[in-house]
Amino acid sequence: MSEKVYGLHAVRALLLRHAERVNAVSVAEGRAEGRGDPRMAEIQSLAQKAGKPLKRVPAATFKQLFGDAVHQGVFADVQPLPAWQEEELVAGITARLEARDAQPPLVLVLDGLQDPHNLGACLRTADACGALAVVIPKDRAVQMTATVRKVAAGAAESTPLAVVTNLARTLRLLKEAGLWIVGADAAAPKLAQETDLAGPIALVMGAEGSGLRQLTRDTCDFLVRLPQQGAVESLNVSVATGMLLYEAVRQRLTPKGSLLRP
Amino acid sequence: MSEKVYGLHAVRALLLRHAERVNAVSVAEGRAEGRGDPRMAEIQSLAQKAGKPLKRVPAATFKQLFGDAVHQGVFADVQPLPAWQEEELVAGITARLEARDAQPPLVLVLDGLQDPHNLGACLRTADACGALAVVIPKDRAVQMTATVRKVAAGAAESTPLAVVTNLARTLRLLKEAGLWIVGADAAAPKLAQETDLAGPIALVMGAEGSGLRQLTRDTCDFLVRLPQQGAVESLNVSVATGMLLYEAVRQRLTPKGSLLRP
Repeated sequence: MSEKVYGLHAVRALLLRHAERVNAVSVAEGRAEGRGDPRMAEIQSLAQKAGKPLKRVPAATFKQLFGDAVHQGVFADVQPLPAWQEEELVAGITARLEARDAQPPLVLVLDGLQDPHNLGACLRTADACGALAVVIPKDRAVQMTATVRKVAAGAAESTPLAVVTNLARTLRLLKEAGLWIVGADAAAPKLAQETDLAGPIALVMGAEGSGLRQLTRDTCDFLVRLPQQGAVESLNVSVATGMLLYEAVRQRLTPKGSLLRP
Repeated sequence: MSEKVYGLHAVRALLLRHAERVNAVSVAEGRAEGRGDPRMAEIQSLAQKAGKPLKRVPAATFKQLFGDAVHQGVFADVQPLPAWQEEELVAGITARLEARDAQPPLVLVLDGLQDPHNLGACLRTADACGALAVVIPKDRAVQMTATVRKVAAGAAESTPLAVVTNLARTLRLLKEAGLWIVGADAAAPKLAQETDLAGPIALVMGAEGSGLRQLTRDTCDFLVRLPQQGAVESLNVSVATGMLLYEAVRQRLTPKGSLLRP
């Protein structure tokens, strides 16, 4: 079983970081020579060095597989990233905290999303923001499906999904591992930008419409909200997730001393 | 012809700001007494003062109309917001710039989106961020449809959509009206947070995958990018729009003097 991940950047990243999971790399006919595109040449060189089969595939096959998506004439067949257990999540956090030159870990927790498009979009954004993993509950929440993988546009093969049976217990484990638990709540007294999100954090988002469950809210170290000025009741959860992950990344890129400590 | 806008906050905002376009307000049976919810009582009082019919509707009708959406037992029948012409857009900007106590105008320009879900999500986010209007080209781009209205969750009746025949000309008009034109471009030298977005701006987003067209890019006063760290090629356009509108709002809420001028 394999998943197809397309695009120059995504395929290059997989070859560099997870070559052991790449089964083969396919390049569109006419693109294989890499003329005018050193990135395509680099991908072919990386695939060869890693001993991966390089295939030439007609452009029509790309169209058939990916429709109008921006595949850039390259895709990789990849063994799916296995879901993480709690132990792997905690080990990943510990390793990141102990690494001297790495950014503090950033984990995204989704408390009961129902819509596969939202889970896919959140995975894609989490990946783009350098999140260590995305955590979802096993029950009463959308799980990894073909639609989720498609919307995630490769991120499902790059950012691990941790599926847990008891979210409140997992949040306590994350606290013990050294993370601050930050819940998103429209009624929170503080704005995200007034809160320190530059350290090791787990950002917890509620389900579409209903928000955080009471038990999840009670487990958070603090709650933050987004500024809202318009007529609409609330932001879409995948857009709100994007804004809050952006704010966390922005703070990580901002020199220290300009931040307010919580 | 009318559109249905649901939710306590959205219906209240429509009655306060655009009562002339509200035809009727419907409340779910058992909710009309407003027990335990002063917001429901306020909505009924606003509707009565404005001389609007108040209807009681079975809960099953809400379920039928809105499915699992968070309707909170209230909706309004609203005359659709007419699309703006260029003149109304310029007049709106001028009025906002001349109003002493108003925030500088923020306009969202979408250069050729194809997916109605993305247009709806961008409208919803623009509304939540207090944008004056959303601008789209008349040709080769998704237009206002039933799907767009549904995804926008009421924002289509609150934030005007301006449909223009020549986007580059409109951008020049916006410049003359006093806006800075800021294009989103993954290859831009500066991050959004390093750029002053607190003043009067039009934020220009490119189409899914392909980004800004060359003519649009050339018309921008400056280009900004979002930080990206992951393996995926690019952010979804509605998430990227959310991040950039968030950054503009964040800067507007941040005391002056802490910003870098472009």
